[in-house]
Amino acid sequence: MTTETPPTALDLPMVDPLPEETQKYFDICVEKLGMVPNVLKANAFDIAKLNAFTGMYNDLMLAESGLSKLEREMIAVVVSSINRCFYCLVAHGAAVRQLSGNPQLGEMLVMNYHVAPLDARQRGMLDFAAKMTTASATIEEADRQALRDVGFSDRDIWDIANVAGFFNMSNRVASATAMRPNDEYHAQFR
Amino acid sequence: MTTETPPTALDLPMVDPLPEETQKYFDICVEKLGMVPNVLKANAFDIAKLNAFTGMYNDLMLAESGLSKLEREMIAVVVSSINRCFYCLVAHGAAVRQLSGNPQLGEMLVMNYHVAPLDARQRGMLDFAAKMTTASATIEEADRQALRDVGFSDRDIWDIANVAGFFNMSNRVASATAMRPNDEYHAQFR
Amino acid sequence: MTTETPPTALDLPMVDPLPEETQKYFDICVEKLGMVPNVLKANAFDIAKLNAFTGMYNDLMLAESGLSKLEREMIAVVVSSINRCFYCLVAHGAAVRQLSGNPQLGEMLVMNYHVAPLDARQRGMLDFAAKMTTASATIEEADRQALRDVGFSDRDIWDIANVAGFFNMSNRVASATAMRPNDEYHAQFR
Amino acid sequence: MTTETPPTALDLPMVDPLPEETQKYFDICVEKLGMVPNVLKANAFDIAKLNAFTGMYNDLMLAESGLSKLEREMIAVVVSSINRCFYCLVAHGAAVRQLSGNPQLGEMLVMNYHVAPLDARQRGMLDFAAKMTTASATIEEADRQALRDVGFSDRDIWDIANVAGFFNMSNRVASATAMRPNDEYHAQFR
Amino acid sequence: MTTETPPTALDLPMVDPLPEETQKYFDICVEKLGMVPNVLKANAFDIAKLNAFTGMYNDLMLAESGLSKLEREMIAVVVSSINRCFYCLVAHGAAVRQLSGNPQLGEMLVMNYHVAPLDARQRGMLDFAAKMTTASATIEEADRQALRDVGFSDRDIWDIANVAGFFNMSNRVASATAMRPNDEYHAQFR
Amino acid sequence: MTTETPPTALDLPMVDPLPEETQKYFDICVEKLGMVPNVLKANAFDIAKLNAFTGMYNDLMLAESGLSKLEREMIAVVVSSINRCFYCLVAHGAAVRQLSGNPQLGEMLVMNYHVAPLDARQRGMLDFAAKMTTASATIEEADRQALRDVGFSDRDIWDIANVAGFFNMSNRVASATAMRPNDEYHAQFR
Repeated sequence: MTTETPPTALDLPMVDPLPEETQKYFDICVEKLGMVPNVLKANAFDIAKLNAFTGMYNDLMLAESGLSKLEREMIAVVVSSINRCFYCLVAHGAAVRQLSGNPQLGEMLVMNYHVAPLDARQRGMLDFAAKMTTASATIEEADRQALRDVGFSDRDIWDIANVAGFFNMSNRVASATAMRPNDEYHAQFR
Repeated sequence: MTTETPPTALDLPMVDPLPEETQKYFDICVEKLGMVPNVLKANAFDIAKLNAFTGMYNDLMLAESGLSKLEREMIAVVVSSINRCFYCLVAHGAAVRQLSGNPQLGEMLVMNYHVAPLDARQRGMLDFAAKMTTASATIEEADRQALRDVGFSDRDIWDIANVAGFFNMSNRVASATAMRPNDEYHAQFR
Repeated sequence: MTTETPPTALDLPMVDPLPEETQKYFDICVEKLGMVPNVLKANAFDIAKLNAFTGMYNDLMLAESGLSKLEREMIAVVVSSINRCFYCLVAHGAAVRQLSGNPQLGEMLVMNYHVAPLDARQRGMLDFAAKMTTASATIEEADRQALRDVGFSDRDIWDIANVAGFFNMSNRVASATAMRPNDEYHAQFR
Repeated sequence: MTTETPPTALDLPMVDPLPEETQKYFDICVEKLGMVPNVLKANAFDIAKLNAFTGMYNDLMLAESGLSKLEREMIAVVVSSINRCFYCLVAHGAAVRQLSGNPQLGEMLVMNYHVAPLDARQRGMLDFAAKMTTASATIEEADRQALRDVGFSDRDIWDIANVAGFFNMSNRVASATAMRPNDEYHAQFR
Repeated sequence: MTTETPPTALDLPMVDPLPEETQKYFDICVEKLGMVPNVLKANAFDIAKLNAFTGMYNDLMLAESGLSKLEREMIAVVVSSINRCFYCLVAHGAAVRQLSGNPQLGEMLVMNYHVAPLDARQRGMLDFAAKMTTASATIEEADRQALRDVGFSDRDIWDIANVAGFFNMSNRVASATAMRPNDEYHAQFR
Repeated sequence: MTTETPPTALDLPMVDPLPEETQKYFDICVEKLGMVPNVLKANAFDIAKLNAFTGMYNDLMLAESGLSKLEREMIAVVVSSINRCFYCLVAHGAAVRQLSGNPQLGEMLVMNYHVAPLDARQRGMLDFAAKMTTASATIEEADRQALRDVGFSDRDIWDIANVAGFFNMSNRVASATAMRPNDEYHAQFR
């Protein structure tokens, strides 16, 4: 791992050796995903920061929710498309292709979600995430009510808001640090 | 605590009773701040989410860093000003007034940071945070180098990026859920 | 008055001595407001300009109108918020706090008027002022009719348009000249 | 004068009869310009407002200044072009054609001032007016210094700022009220 | 033709002598329009490019269509107004004045089409062309249906889209190359 | 060919049977590309329009030029990325992957060309194409000179401008008509 391209443009080498628990987590990543995602390596110069990041990420994307894992990835991609974040579009575009089994859906969400054939629920969810990304200050009760009208609970709305919020954070951190997506993502699930 | 105004427009009551550790944390807030910030109450419908939030928040804003606590709050306010987040401007505007001992600096950062008399380091830091907020996709090496040129290390740049990123998340979650700032902030440190 | 900070970044000293009538006007300001607002000092290098400014300002903000003085100040703050004018937000934010007796309303209008709890009349008024500020070329009859529908007369619409227009002027002059708000405003009516 | 098209979309008839002094002023307009500009008729429902408007207008556009009358009209047209104000583009576009004797210059400023062949002084002046119109909150000392560097005094900068500010007001009032330019302007000085 | 001002800022002289067919085409232009439009001279450094341009232009603007020639010129002017293309506004503004016999309509479309008194068909057509120009990625079936609702066929929609598309191309080429409109246009049909 | 999904949302069936020459052209497409690109089918309801389109397209993208075919496709993708045109991103993204032999370059240009490692020539070319797409009215001689400074001739600048212009047209036509990219593109050259 020593001579590989660093995960960002910042000179912040990983703690070496990694603590046992972190190393175990990275080993699981390799086993399940075939790689350690660069966002994890980028945080691994400070294990407290890495743990804070994975704590929030795993709660948002993997914990139980009224939103399916695919739906959470769809939000990730639409937010990242508006913010034009290369890292997140590559990584989460692959996830949408995988979870949906529909490579063209992944491409549509990466390029312009308006062209995707979506039901009212998913379209409403993505419109809310898009408005949060471009004009959050103008969100009012009518926007939340529109989500309730297509079947989302208040708990679901919290989850939509927090997933959309999270990628508005991670998109910006990735772009600010020139984070590089792992090569493996590009050809996956085409 | 049962009859007070809820912290957001979503119907997500706090876990009742709170787990002992959470209750202790909230008690410390009351002791130190005179209140439990509404962002904590808003998350307290699900203790795992609350812990993920406070884990990341406390690491970013309170852990050791090349950025002072005031500087991190300055970033918070400038990002929140661009995103016009009422909750964060009220809460973190008060923090800038407190930590700087300069109420007018707080107002300048809330209203338009271009009018604040800042040294090159802090101006560079805020310009980077502002660019991350409005045009993160166009950030390139020259932007990072500009930070190095006014004295920031790569580790500092990581911290600037992550604080600015965090408020781009929390601003949007607060606006999306109509989060209300505690009344106590308004008159503080004027 | 000779050694104080000048009211703008331009080197344009006040006429010295001031004409009697102007001096009387400034004395009344001190008596009523505790200060001479810097916008008046900034104009006082040329008494004809000062008189033209106060003539228009006093007619708009103080003459009889279907809009209350508070409503005119609310428009001032919302326009100034969109334009991010430090001078006008400080001065007229204080006026909204004073006239409404509601400091939080003042803060809401300074930060993001979408979060303020307003009736249909005042919301319609502020939406019109906001559209005039950001997209005046797209205003059409439907926008004026919306104001009539919430109870405004054509005369009221003229007044809304002219108050909103005026602050689109004065915001820009203040920003272009780095006009400084008097220190007294910051702590008032909190 | 009773059956003609009203000057705006608002039902605000002129005071009838006009006060003697106002009637005299309007008669001079007819004599010199061949018409009473509709902006004056629009204000004439309230003579105090008309006088405040003409007081400020005449001081800005006609009083002595380091800016020529043509230069002030050039600012008027460039600001009005950015704001897409039909009334002001028609009226002040004609003024630029007249005062410059160069109909194509008038058209260039109406359509896109970037294509006009201008010296550094006039280009700097118009760039400052344009920035005031689109991004006034970002103006800083460097912008003012750029004007000094092409020969403007601080007094000139005040005049540039106030003329540009004024049309940011009158553009918005004209668009908000659907003010119609007099027919006479269209074919003048082609 | 050798000493005249070149049609663009690029040093790309016309083929000399022109091929017989091209010369004949240019002679017809002089006969009918009193000039060879500079856009043709600008392309005439490469006859294949000139022919491709005129082939597309003539099909779009002159071939049979459910849109009148005036309507196609109206689209040209509205698109060019949004893009602020000096060349196209001058040339096609003149065409609207000529074909409509209404010089003020030409000015309205050049300056701000929102002020023009239009029927629902023409307003819908121009709104669609404007949306194509500023936010094409957000066009959806509802936008096309709105055109059908005011009487356009699918074939008409194709023509609207292609005329609006064409001027989004030619506006940008003209601005990118500093293309100069022929002097003759300015005073025509006033 | 009768039962397949139509190439756009408009009901404009292809001429049937196609003229012999057109059929031959389509057969060559199938032979070379494995499909008839939907943009050709979309135009084939009117053979004159199809010929005008292919005439211009083939001259721009295939004729001799100082720009390589890859460079022209790079411009196509960057313009289409800014305009978020699904059809063109899919079709021309595949072309960049093919011609460069670098799938990641294709993805970078689709998602955010700022992250692509480019030499000064290609970066300058794409910056110019991007400025033409977002702010063509502000292009001035300095922008053209910047292209000359990295080695482009005036003839090359014409070609850059016309390729960038062309995709600003075709992006908008594709979005306006909901043009669907052929399925074959998605998995190509990954």
